[in-house]
Amino acid sequence: MASRLQPIYDIAEICALKGVTEAVLCPGSRCAPLTVSFVRHQKINTRTFSDERSAAFIANGIAQSKSKVVAMICTSGSAAYNFAPAVAEAYFQRIPILILTADRPKEWIDQLDGQTIRQQNIYGNHVKKSFELPDQYDHPDSVWHIHRTINEAINLCNQFPKGPVHVNIPLREPLYLSEDETFQYSDDLKINNKLTADSQLDEDSLKQLAEQFVSFNKILIVAGQQKINFELSAAIEKFSTDHRVPVLADIISNQHHLKEFVNHSDVFLGACKVDIKKSLRPELLITFGQSVISKNLKTFLRQYKPKNHWHIQPDGEAADTFQSLTAILPVSPIKLFQQLGSEQLKSGFEAQKRDNFYRLWEAEEHRTIRTIKSFFKTAQLNEFSLVNEIINHLPEECNLHLANSMPVRYANFIGLLTEKKGIEIFSNRGTSGIDGCVSTAVGHALATDKPNVLITGDMAFFYDRNAFWHNYKLPNLRVVVLNNHGGAIFSMIDGPSKQPEANDYFITNQKLTAKSLTQEFDFDYLKLDSLKKLKNLLKDFFDFDGRTKILEIEYNAEEVKKVMQEFKNQIRSNYDN
Amino acid sequence: MASRLQPIYDIAEICALKGVTEAVLCPGSRCAPLTVSFVRHQKINTRTFSDERSAAFIANGIAQSKSKVVAMICTSGSAAYNFAPAVAEAYFQRIPILILTADRPKEWIDQLDGQTIRQQNIYGNHVKKSFELPDQYDHPDSVWHIHRTINEAINLCNQFPKGPVHVNIPLREPLYLSEDETFQYSDDLKINNKLTADSQLDEDSLKQLAEQFVSFNKILIVAGQQKINFELSAAIEKFSTDHRVPVLADIISNQHHLKEFVNHSDVFLGACKVDIKKSLRPELLITFGQSVISKNLKTFLRQYKPKNHWHIQPDGEAADTFQSLTAILPVSPIKLFQQLGSEQLKSGFEAQKRDNFYRLWEAEEHRTIRTIKSFFKTAQLNEFSLVNEIINHLPEECNLHLANSMPVRYANFIGLLTEKKGIEIFSNRGTSGIDGCVSTAVGHALATDKPNVLITGDMAFFYDRNAFWHNYKLPNLRVVVLNNHGGAIFSMIDGPSKQPEANDYFITNQKLTAKSLTQEFDFDYLKLDSLKKLKNLLKDFFDFDGRTKILEIEYNAEEVKKVMQEFKNQIRSNYDN
Repeated sequence: MASRLQPIYDIAEICALKGVTEAVLCPGSRCAPLTVSFVRHQKINTRTFSDERSAAFIANGIAQSKSKVVAMICTSGSAAYNFAPAVAEAYFQRIPILILTADRPKEWIDQLDGQTIRQQNIYGNHVKKSFELPDQYDHPDSVWHIHRTINEAINLCNQFPKGPVHVNIPLREPLYLSEDETFQYSDDLKINNKLTADSQLDEDSLKQLAEQFVSFNKILIVAGQQKINFELSAAIEKFSTDHRVPVLADIISNQHHLKEFVNHSDVFLGACKVDIKKSLRPELLITFGQSVISKNLKTFLRQYKPKNHWHIQPDGEAADTFQSLTAILPVSPIKLFQQLGSEQLKSGFEAQKRDNFYRLWEAEEHRTIRTIKSFFKTAQLNEFSLVNEIINHLPEECNLHLANSMPVRYANFIGLLTEKKGIEIFSNRGTSGIDGCVSTAVGHALATDKPNVLITGDMAFFYDRNAFWHNYKLPNLRVVVLNNHGGAIFSMIDGPSKQPEANDYFITNQKLTAKSLTQEFDFDYLKLDSLKKLKNLLKDFFDFDGRTKILEIEYNAEEVKKVMQEFKNQIRSNYDN
Repeated sequence: MASRLQPIYDIAEICALKGVTEAVLCPGSRCAPLTVSFVRHQKINTRTFSDERSAAFIANGIAQSKSKVVAMICTSGSAAYNFAPAVAEAYFQRIPILILTADRPKEWIDQLDGQTIRQQNIYGNHVKKSFELPDQYDHPDSVWHIHRTINEAINLCNQFPKGPVHVNIPLREPLYLSEDETFQYSDDLKINNKLTADSQLDEDSLKQLAEQFVSFNKILIVAGQQKINFELSAAIEKFSTDHRVPVLADIISNQHHLKEFVNHSDVFLGACKVDIKKSLRPELLITFGQSVISKNLKTFLRQYKPKNHWHIQPDGEAADTFQSLTAILPVSPIKLFQQLGSEQLKSGFEAQKRDNFYRLWEAEEHRTIRTIKSFFKTAQLNEFSLVNEIINHLPEECNLHLANSMPVRYANFIGLLTEKKGIEIFSNRGTSGIDGCVSTAVGHALATDKPNVLITGDMAFFYDRNAFWHNYKLPNLRVVVLNNHGGAIFSMIDGPSKQPEANDYFITNQKLTAKSLTQEFDFDYLKLDSLKKLKNLLKDFFDFDGRTKILEIEYNAEEVKKVMQEFKNQIRSNYDN
């Protein structure tokens, strides 16, 4: 005889049939039927984590790594709210997460029972949709409702723009199978898969774009955050080469597969003079992907607005990041560059003008790269130079995780060279929080055998230390902790550093070091306190011998500030007459 | 000249004028105007914490301790979401919190800027109301809007049932005062205070209640969670004595000031036979306060429903916890017991019958107390007997914080004796989560010089370890960690313990001990590993010498289960023929 909870037990089976292979579970009693449903499923790898906040960011990491929907499950009550920071990150970074929250049956909400809050729509505007399952399964329509909802929820997770979808699941007692009771997944479950399709611009639109395109000589491509996509990089490279259009690519855009690209706009746009900025102003801006890190690039483009700005995005709302959006192109960037690239886009005369514009950007990029190289040649050991060393010594194939906020900025200043083809960059730039940077990297480390290197400041590191509070090994994880004992970023921004509250209320002076944590979790602890040790420490650090390793450098915020001022001075000196 | 941000700077002044003396601040840049507003205010004590989740629970603790609105402030983005678990707890436990979240101006939402999420109404149904301030202050009506909103928000926090209120504050750059710029709080701010009023039943209602009351011989009072209230306890005591009505009071109801009350219903109702239960069934149930812990009491009352159930609550929605609610009495419990108590409620005949019912409950209570005493007389050292020792050795005046889920259950089994008048019990029974138990106790320790003793399991302890990640001293905090390396509660419930997934997916077997944490934060570490050490350790533990102290006992879940089974067996043996 089928169990009363059969439709609930079948949820894992539906997930598996729709390609879900990974689940993240937070222990609890109300979610017990979901627990056994997922844990007993042969085709789903279910891992368990006790701190829901970390668990959810770990799920994000696994989903990013596998490029697949990950199911994440928690019990009723505030557990669901601890998922919320990661859910917001998943929403804005477009990570497909199926959130399954167990709940009490509706009639017990607000009746002062334990672990009972108002879970319906709890993630507000940070999920693509919120469903609620029925809590009675007697009527066949209820069973159909459950099956259909899980299908729809997973389809929606996967539909562009991908993202989190919430299914709230009220469960009535008894929640447990009796000792000798068992269940089998139903073998007649209907699966409703949404297929993928690829739009292309119709002829009129294409003609219109081509006409606009040839009317401009100063054209600029800016790539936002995205995963590596070789096919896209190839399409961009062909387009950029054919039409001499410079490509600006922050480190998080993962465009270091291009032979040529402008990596350092954040550095030189913060230093160069007005006349150069005027010459760099594009007439047409073409963007795709998500956020850019470079504040200087944003400021530049908002000040020197292009006449036209096309944003390429297959579906969903488009952001007007540079206050100049004139067209949304509802196709994939690959398709756009292929379609547009095959049109007649230039005469000999325009080609020359485009080349001039290309060379302007190229000149600033090359000049900046030279200055950066010379800066690091003479640099003392400090957290900025350590990031440079780490990037230079990365394993050939690895994921580099950059925590908010200084590490991702440091790394973006330094940039990734074209030869670093085996590296992929990840950073929580959906909400840009410090709350789950470590857990996201841990999720990646669990999901792949590849080395995963995280560079983090001390604030993001200790904030999210429960990333390590579980029983899974992380032999492929390497963490670099830039410990300046607080939010050193606040000492660098003019505003807060000049307030009398700077030390106590902005920088905060946290006192921990990573050593104790490494002892708790039996990780190797490498302390970098002199330049002489660097070479050997890096060798040890990047030796993948089965141990998790944490490399720490300690600097105070004032020293960090001086280093960055010196760096900025050297860049600025390029523009002194 | 007044600063552009004058209306924002004035927020702290309005708060102060309305009696706010404490603020909790999480560092960030967008919230800088709020930071300087609060930090520079002479009459507001502003403390800073980096992990918003802990910070918010700390704010709850301070607000509980002071019985006053606490302002809590964070920057934009996911920071606000990390407040959410504590906001839900505050909502259901009726703690007055003014949540001030900095935000980007509206036009920058969804434009891919950093630390920007959809903050409006972010706490959904877990705040009493959500406001949003204007981001332009040129028009005098906007300034009036801001002043009025802060007034209304604080008034609403304080209005019964108290709770959290959210004010979202979009802030446009520049966010910082320049180096030589300063500001003064305005001296003409209008304050709108809502006065308090006290309802009383009108004569018709009172007459009706009195008529019902005298028609019943079996009347039972059940007190839910609440803070100590001497006046209320006196009113209950008089009423209970005059009319021989037994008072059932969980440990979290703080009714140990009563001379006589039934403390152990959770223990004996789980063991006694049907005939006794039938005899204990009330005809009229009178309740007040919030949740009760005792699952056995809930089950008993839901099974043996009273004919009438009156719930006393001045305002707001009333829960029907026992599925038998027949009347909501919209007055304070003090007023009700005084008003009703002054009516003619008994004849000699009914008094005898009421006394019989009283003695039935009293008999079970006394029998249980004897068994518990004899159980602990012979008990070996274990986490349950340690809780008993801790309760017996508490300082005369102190707050006892009970974490979810086993510690509060253990303590409720044991109970507080009437002579422990200087103790007040706190427990996060709003949502009953493990997520903020440590931080809430830390909040209390910061807000008062009184000793604060927290008893917690290892799950709640490590989940919320960032409670300690700040620079404030906690000389009056004592933490007892019952470390059974996982959720031992799951080994005690029949359901999960019989699943093959019990160890890995319910209990989870976390491996940490508290020792390393005590080193990190420079606390004293006391390890209890033998009965012989107990006396000296307790002496040391309760010596308030300026140090923070953590006492840990380690037991595995299986041993813990055996102890509780033996306890239950002894209680059950009371009812063997």
